[in-house]
Amino acid sequence: MFELILGGARSGKSHFAEQRALQSGLEVIYIATATAGDAEMAARIAHHQQHRPTHWKTVETPLYLAKTLQTYAHPQACLLVDCLTLWLNNCLFDEAVCWETQRQLLLAEIAQLPGRQILVSNEVGQGIVPLGAVSRQFVDESGRLHQALASLADRVFFVVAGLPQVLKGT
Amino acid sequence: MFELILGGARSGKSHFAEQRALQSGLEVIYIATATAGDAEMAARIAHHQQHRPTHWKTVETPLYLAKTLQTYAHPQACLLVDCLTLWLNNCLFDEAVCWETQRQLLLAEIAQLPGRQILVSNEVGQGIVPLGAVSRQFVDESGRLHQALASLADRVFFVVAGLPQVLKGT
Amino acid sequence: MFELILGGARSGKSHFAEQRALQSGLEVIYIATATAGDAEMAARIAHHQQHRPTHWKTVETPLYLAKTLQTYAHPQACLLVDCLTLWLNNCLFDEAVCWETQRQLLLAEIAQLPGRQILVSNEVGQGIVPLGAVSRQFVDESGRLHQALASLADRVFFVVAGLPQVLKGT
Repeated sequence: MFELILGGARSGKSHFAEQRALQSGLEVIYIATATAGDAEMAARIAHHQQHRPTHWKTVETPLYLAKTLQTYAHPQACLLVDCLTLWLNNCLFDEAVCWETQRQLLLAEIAQLPGRQILVSNEVGQGIVPLGAVSRQFVDESGRLHQALASLADRVFFVVAGLPQVLKGT
Repeated sequence: MFELILGGARSGKSHFAEQRALQSGLEVIYIATATAGDAEMAARIAHHQQHRPTHWKTVETPLYLAKTLQTYAHPQACLLVDCLTLWLNNCLFDEAVCWETQRQLLLAEIAQLPGRQILVSNEVGQGIVPLGAVSRQFVDESGRLHQALASLADRVFFVVAGLPQVLKGT
Repeated sequence: MFELILGGARSGKSHFAEQRALQSGLEVIYIATATAGDAEMAARIAHHQQHRPTHWKTVETPLYLAKTLQTYAHPQACLLVDCLTLWLNNCLFDEAVCWETQRQLLLAEIAQLPGRQILVSNEVGQGIVPLGAVSRQFVDESGRLHQALASLADRVFFVVAGLPQVLKGT
């Protein structure tokens, strides 16, 4: 069973996802796609860590998300992935990785996994269309990924100002 | 009777609009505002065409939308316009066209037409306000157009990750 | 009692807020955070003023919002603040002002005030993440403010194409 949690930047989507994970009553494994490449990102990661229970296991997975999910999923675990947007970004900008392959592996895997998964992702497509071709590709791939995942997900939420709206499921 | 379908970039709004057109049971006339000016746009147009039934008539209308709607509307036709954002863009950047006139012609016409119309448009105003004055004008005119059309529309949808939310009508 | 009204650029949020203020039956005091620094902003202010009843008292408050709310709030008044986004912008870019202090003063004050308050703010976090660190800070602080206010607010609305959606309250 998996849930997709969408929302804008600083919309409270991570906090909502963490609450859902806690309420699952399962062992929570936190799958972080961020890597602390610079001071700003390190600060963002630290900010997120403050809000998480210290006993949650953390797995860093910038690129090979499907493989990590397959490795850690089990009937008593809730895998919390935060966030898909950074994962997409990491894959698009890493020349050794084929985004299309990683995407298809995730989509083939995600609905078959035992236990529970919560995937967090940024809505990035509701502003003005960016000027650069790379930015447009990023927005396109993000929207395409969200559509594919939402069609498979058991529940989809959109978080605005910390307030979750149900887009799919009940 | 006309419907307005809003959504971000790659939100699934075109696909949803095409489903609505199919379900109308009417003859569908597809009104494309895009013109294949460069390779990227040609690829985007081709991507959209793959999803459409081949027997739909296509009319290319980059600028004079009200006139096209008036020409093709009839009680047994469903006109599908995809999308208003490109039309706005085309009008604003074509020196031979007055956007304000085109806008007013559309608003005067749209609620009076026989048959059914489905208008697709991009939400572009929920990101950070762009730096350039032209970009701000684009965002402003887009929002202004959406408000005016939504007040006249029988139904308004907002599509997120392929999931349509009803904003108006039932 | 206070309400938060969110929406994208030119979404109709100001117009909706003004209707809510009118319907309150209270004396409306309009608290403008904009200052006419250039011709474009002057035009935007003039555009907004046309829609407002001329008998509403207007107070210009680019920076010290909590203090103004405290000064004008009373049981028979509806304070309409338009908008928080500009206020945030003004505070972040004025070296003599500490945003964090202003933010905390507002949050400490807003739920305690007599009468009614309507706060309007722009959703800016649902587009692509901007390149500059200052823009990212702006998006972050905006989202953080919206979350904090939404958790305290009696009602929260999100306006799209002039159509208000209820996110909290009834």
